[in-house]
Amino acid sequence: MLDVFLLGTGGTSPVPERWLTSCYIRCDGMAVLIDCGEGTQIALKEQGLSFKNIDAVLFTHYHADHTGGLPGMLLSMGKAGRTEPLDLYGPDGLENLVRGVMYIAHRIPFELRLHIIDGRETGFTLGKLQIKAFEVYHSVKCYAYRIDLPRNARFDAAKARALAVPVRLWGRLQKGETVEHEGAVYTPEQVLGEKRRGIRMVYATDTLPVRAIPREAAGADLLIAEGMYGDPEKKENALKHRHMMMQEAAKIAKEAQVKELWLTHFSPSVHDPLYWKDHVVEIFPDTVISNDCIHKDIPFPEDPEE
Amino acid sequence: MLDVFLLGTGGTSPVPERWLTSCYIRCDGMAVLIDCGEGTQIALKEQGLSFKNIDAVLFTHYHADHTGGLPGMLLSMGKAGRTEPLDLYGPDGLENLVRGVMYIAHRIPFELRLHIIDGRETGFTLGKLQIKAFEVYHSVKCYAYRIDLPRNARFDAAKARALAVPVRLWGRLQKGETVEHEGAVYTPEQVLGEKRRGIRMVYATDTLPVRAIPREAAGADLLIAEGMYGDPEKKENALKHRHMMMQEAAKIAKEAQVKELWLTHFSPSVHDPLYWKDHVVEIFPDTVISNDCIHKDIPFPEDPEE
Repeated sequence: MLDVFLLGTGGTSPVPERWLTSCYIRCDGMAVLIDCGEGTQIALKEQGLSFKNIDAVLFTHYHADHTGGLPGMLLSMGKAGRTEPLDLYGPDGLENLVRGVMYIAHRIPFELRLHIIDGRETGFTLGKLQIKAFEVYHSVKCYAYRIDLPRNARFDAAKARALAVPVRLWGRLQKGETVEHEGAVYTPEQVLGEKRRGIRMVYATDTLPVRAIPREAAGADLLIAEGMYGDPEKKENALKHRHMMMQEAAKIAKEAQVKELWLTHFSPSVHDPLYWKDHVVEIFPDTVISNDCIHKDIPFPEDPEE
Repeated sequence: MLDVFLLGTGGTSPVPERWLTSCYIRCDGMAVLIDCGEGTQIALKEQGLSFKNIDAVLFTHYHADHTGGLPGMLLSMGKAGRTEPLDLYGPDGLENLVRGVMYIAHRIPFELRLHIIDGRETGFTLGKLQIKAFEVYHSVKCYAYRIDLPRNARFDAAKARALAVPVRLWGRLQKGETVEHEGAVYTPEQVLGEKRRGIRMVYATDTLPVRAIPREAAGADLLIAEGMYGDPEKKENALKHRHMMMQEAAKIAKEAQVKELWLTHFSPSVHDPLYWKDHVVEIFPDTVISNDCIHKDIPFPEDPEE
């Protein structure tokens, strides 16, 4: 299960009832935040989420609508008693962001571990999550994130029984461990059946609609993508500042055949993003015009016999 | 008239429905902000206030609950087309705050003019407002602000007529100008009557209840003061971190014989500040347990014959 919350759906400047960009992903007792706009700590509290278990913050880029909430959130983490290190990931410039944070926050009572992302794409692991940062195209260096929660292959009990594998070893084998027991060696390959699809989501903002997005989002359970404007007259403005239109995001979702698209990062000039719903649903029916409390538990895909 | 708005009444960390510390004061077409906690720009928008006309931001001190909203607010000011310089006032450390802001905001398209406050007290003028910063006692260097809007002395029309001062010169004389006209020189003293009281307010947070506060607030129309806790069991904690209890602020208001006291800067641990209302009203009846949208137009005191 992957629990995904959008904490804020605003781009550029916050407006009442629309926080700045941030996404909270919870999985197996840990949590990852992508971006941390001004007010993120309040949005977390409003949704009843804890920031104590946030293990990592991933930054797409360093425009302040994606970073301005970091000093306050780190201070509140400290006041809540955090002593565990926090991992921060982002493109080059992360040191400067942290320098700015320290000038404002003065002292954070836990370690910040910085991980610079570079190149066209970079992979890393956070708990059970496999993260792939891939470069998109904004006015400054910017990455989108693909997040995969892999699933163990099906355990074939019939095979295990045929090999007389003691039941108490089944769990370790299913997790991919090779197990030695009373002189016999059992390998996962002996007892595992067909591979099973895990859960995939992609988070892509701020960017022009580049080819990497449908490629990485192919078949994903959820694509969260920028929909800065809905009004076709704003297209030129979007192009100039390298932002994505709602319709462009919907086309990507359609091409990538994702299960669901959440639009986010609306311009403050878009008073009612829902006004554009018909325009995007026409392109990709499973589009959600997100609001600040959208939340979804994404389950593993159902097995045929389950 | 002095329009005073509390934008946020939270201390330390924001909680839902309670923004961090900030106070907006409007007078004669200009505006002054005191402190700028995370979310200030949103609180301004929620109250329908413009940040375009903010001429100065005064900082009491540089704990992040008083400063964290500055990068976002400055960026939004820039996006709203501001090109006029902005004056920032505060104790030593202001350069570092601005350095931090620049690491986060990258580029502010207008000049920031820094004014360092030092010594026990410092006076300066902002438009028609006379400001006095006076040192209080927190865990770091911290100033409170007394703000006076002086009032011209009453114009004595009888005196002016007796001296045959042309009526079209009255306005300039009332403003305190000496006027030369057709060989005659008229001075304000010739035509002004009794002096009149202006409007005074004092803003004091974060601090222990030091003597300077009742001294500066004596007879003020409004005292805005920290009321970090109401629960007497928190007194030790308040003392340790140099914060003021609600009851202590009420005692100061009583001693200073202010017209009204607004309590602010409530600890996030105080779920319902109103719970303590009876305790403080008992000490000083004209106490308001503020919330985030409290607002008052303070008029000049009524003249006896008006």
